[in-house]
Amino acid sequence: MFRFEIVNRSDKSMARVGIVNTKHGVIHTPAFIFCATKANVKGLTIDHVKNSGTQIILSNAYHLMLQPGSDLIRRAGGLHRFLSWDGPMFTDSGGFQIFSLGHGSVSSEIKGTRFGDRRRTLLCVTEEGAEFRSYYDGRIVKLTPESSMQIQMDLGADIIVSMDECTPYHVSKLYTANSMEKSKRWAIRSLEELKKEGRQNSQALLAVIQGGIYKDLRQESAHFANMNDFPGFAIGGSLGKTRSEMYDVIGMTTEMLDRSRYTHLLGIGGIADIFEGVKCGIDTFDCVSPTRIARHGAALVKARELLKKSQKHMNLNNAIYVDDFSPIRESCQCYTCRNFSRAYIHHLLRSRESLAGSLISIHNIFTMNRLMADIRKAIAEDKLDEIRNDWC
Amino acid sequence: MFRFEIVNRSDKSMARVGIVNTKHGVIHTPAFIFCATKANVKGLTIDHVKNSGTQIILSNAYHLMLQPGSDLIRRAGGLHRFLSWDGPMFTDSGGFQIFSLGHGSVSSEIKGTRFGDRRRTLLCVTEEGAEFRSYYDGRIVKLTPESSMQIQMDLGADIIVSMDECTPYHVSKLYTANSMEKSKRWAIRSLEELKKEGRQNSQALLAVIQGGIYKDLRQESAHFANMNDFPGFAIGGSLGKTRSEMYDVIGMTTEMLDRSRYTHLLGIGGIADIFEGVKCGIDTFDCVSPTRIARHGAALVKARELLKKSQKHMNLNNAIYVDDFSPIRESCQCYTCRNFSRAYIHHLLRSRESLAGSLISIHNIFTMNRLMADIRKAIAEDKLDEIRNDWC
Repeated sequence: MFRFEIVNRSDKSMARVGIVNTKHGVIHTPAFIFCATKANVKGLTIDHVKNSGTQIILSNAYHLMLQPGSDLIRRAGGLHRFLSWDGPMFTDSGGFQIFSLGHGSVSSEIKGTRFGDRRRTLLCVTEEGAEFRSYYDGRIVKLTPESSMQIQMDLGADIIVSMDECTPYHVSKLYTANSMEKSKRWAIRSLEELKKEGRQNSQALLAVIQGGIYKDLRQESAHFANMNDFPGFAIGGSLGKTRSEMYDVIGMTTEMLDRSRYTHLLGIGGIADIFEGVKCGIDTFDCVSPTRIARHGAALVKARELLKKSQKHMNLNNAIYVDDFSPIRESCQCYTCRNFSRAYIHHLLRSRESLAGSLISIHNIFTMNRLMADIRKAIAEDKLDEIRNDWC
Repeated sequence: MFRFEIVNRSDKSMARVGIVNTKHGVIHTPAFIFCATKANVKGLTIDHVKNSGTQIILSNAYHLMLQPGSDLIRRAGGLHRFLSWDGPMFTDSGGFQIFSLGHGSVSSEIKGTRFGDRRRTLLCVTEEGAEFRSYYDGRIVKLTPESSMQIQMDLGADIIVSMDECTPYHVSKLYTANSMEKSKRWAIRSLEELKKEGRQNSQALLAVIQGGIYKDLRQESAHFANMNDFPGFAIGGSLGKTRSEMYDVIGMTTEMLDRSRYTHLLGIGGIADIFEGVKCGIDTFDCVSPTRIARHGAALVKARELLKKSQKHMNLNNAIYVDDFSPIRESCQCYTCRNFSRAYIHHLLRSRESLAGSLISIHNIFTMNRLMADIRKAIAEDKLDEIRNDWC
């Protein structure tokens, strides 16, 4: 059922345009995957997610296993039916959240950017799996490669991910190496569990490529994934401390991977990062940022539409927008820009009305989808750098 | 432009079916008016409000004069354009909020149900108008009948209300009488202000009928309104302490009013109250409850669909709904019931996702509109009591 096809390649980089075929429809790649963490895109009815050009959404096994439980979602007819989405869907394994929370911090720690002070919830990691304390109700929960597969089979997404031990930046190379080796064994167990249930054709299992910032470890992880019948890859683990280090790690990793297979980059989705990722041959991206920044009043616009060069987004909290009756972007065809002004959204933000976040989320989702469509077109025409300068 | 037409009358009560014609379309009455207090129906994009069968929405002059200011909304092209609603719209005068907050409490105090302990914000009331402290930024604001009209003209709603002194339950008859007399003078000043601007045909000014629970005072207030060229009435002031007292006050007041004119009941909108109001000849109702209770997890259903007789709503927080995969109401055609289960909404409530309130709000709005359509049909067929038993 799952099939990835490359329909166009850039001459100047590894960028490619592809089509992912799933049981729930096709995804034109490069594509952005929007986060419906707890089985909903925060603050949005699903019709607005769909009508903003969204091809695929992502839910988190970690959150859903704790509340409402994957068994309940299976009994509801699967996640598609539960949240009323009939398009392609992606779930992660739960590993990332367990380890990122468990190491005492959130995802930024994985990215090497800071140490957190959150109470550690990861209790132990063995060859079998990991034990952690539920953030939801404090009970002790065990996750193994097999149980992560069972959860992801209950949820029924079209693209799923093998459980890995996600290592943070601040560990030794030896730790990273051992962890990568364990993730390989876990990936094999995941694949076996999926095959045991006969689901390997309806749910595409991605092998997570680990190895941190170390070329030889990434090589080993990539070689392993190439040698086994995973229909695609998800690049995970630490990508280094700086942007340029991240681009290096992504670039060296994709070069090692079988380029005929679908490749996802886990948890990265800034606009500049997307351009770099696409040039490295990444097919899909996921990130909470388009909707998270929206709830704080930040709208995605092109570089020249910003007030200052130092800004990354249009901050609609800014008093300059109090009587600005133009839409966020004049030429934007999203529901928000067709109907509402910056002044109206500024008023909603000041009034602490949640609709502000919803309207900006609609705009940001539409904009990300528009960006990806522009990128697909630009790859075919070899104009990626031109549109990059327009957007960044 | 504003025209009210009675198209059907009940033989058994004063209930009638009507059509209100406005510049922005017609309203089939009896109708429910949904609150968009701060220029938005909380948590809902306006397309969902419209697609749930809504004919008319109400915004509050009080909130909008403080934030973002009526002048800004006028410059935005009026409230219709600001919030992107092209149907009929209603604004109140601001009087109710000033006096209900000012007397040290919220609306329940006006209704005689409790004393509040909120800091008094009403600074003084004179013949000219009222001075109060803004809840928004603490500045001192003056509202007069003329300035309330100017604000409502800035907003540009189709149906507007004269500023009145809204008296609470716990005042003497003499106070109520003096206040009613002052409201009469303020109503005349409001009408003059509207005529001065030549807006009396595009914005229908309702006279507020005051007089508390006193028949002779209500009579005087009604007589005054009948004798002047207000195109309709809004019944306000204290309606007594109990439900039955409220129905008595409404009934005696409508009997005194010119029955050819449109009559609104201010701030009342429980389902049982609507049936009683309709029988007294009320044409429209407004109340925040359908969306307010939704945000707390309560869905409107018919009486037999409740778990217990003591309940008024379906409380979707209840653990009984954890794996109930049916929609809120099996036969309901609202967006929520066509797409989502009780179990899904229960999950969103548990996860504290705001989408829960949005989805239940959509259902509750659709249901109120369905109820009003049922009522219009039942009046024509003289079956009001039958459908009342079905709903209450």
